[in-house]
Amino acid sequence: MSGYAITPEPPYYAVIFSSQRTEGNNGYGEMADKMVELASKQKGFLGVESARDDVLGITVSYWDSLESIKNWKENAAHIVAQEKGKSIWYQGFALRVSKVERQNFFEM
Amino acid sequence: MSGYAITPEPPYYAVIFSSQRTEGNNGYGEMADKMVELASKQKGFLGVESARDDVLGITVSYWDSLESIKNWKENAAHIVAQEKGKSIWYQGFALRVSKVERQNFFEM
Repeated sequence: MSGYAITPEPPYYAVIFSSQRTEGNNGYGEMADKMVELASKQKGFLGVESARDDVLGITVSYWDSLESIKNWKENAAHIVAQEKGKSIWYQGFALRVSKVERQNFFEM
Repeated sequence: MSGYAITPEPPYYAVIFSSQRTEGNNGYGEMADKMVELASKQKGFLGVESARDDVLGITVSYWDSLESIKNWKENAAHIVAQEKGKSIWYQGFALRVSKVERQNFFEM
């Protein structure tokens, strides 16, 4: 996982996934890496950003359209991860789909 | 900072701030806490989520309108923090304004 994503000019879509994990790893790290790898091969994928501390994890993925988001949601391996997430990895989460209207980058 | 934010029904706005920090703290933690405290007193503030690891920090704040975001951007103490951010704290960042169209919560 690198730094912030270099995305094209808006408009495009952002999926904001904010999660509180359960105790222990239980194969989570491996799955998370695998999901990023899979997502980045999906049509319409524009980038991903992720940060995690003791309290919360936030992953924001960027997409060209709602259809691309729908396709990723329905990806077979991703469905398995979603189910495991609910039963094993997550205490709770918020998932938001938003349309990016403007962006700014700053580089020192 | 607690877990994910409990936001009202969309539509509303999300400001996604993804940053790569410079070395050392240089008063950053104190300022970050202070900014969250100040933001939460602003008109139109709906919630905030934040996570930070070695590579990246992501803070997502939620607002009722573009006008509320503009007011927060122009808050005097926040302007000082923005300037110090560019000169001292941040190696680089991406700032995105997006309109949340739908959301889902999951609680175990």
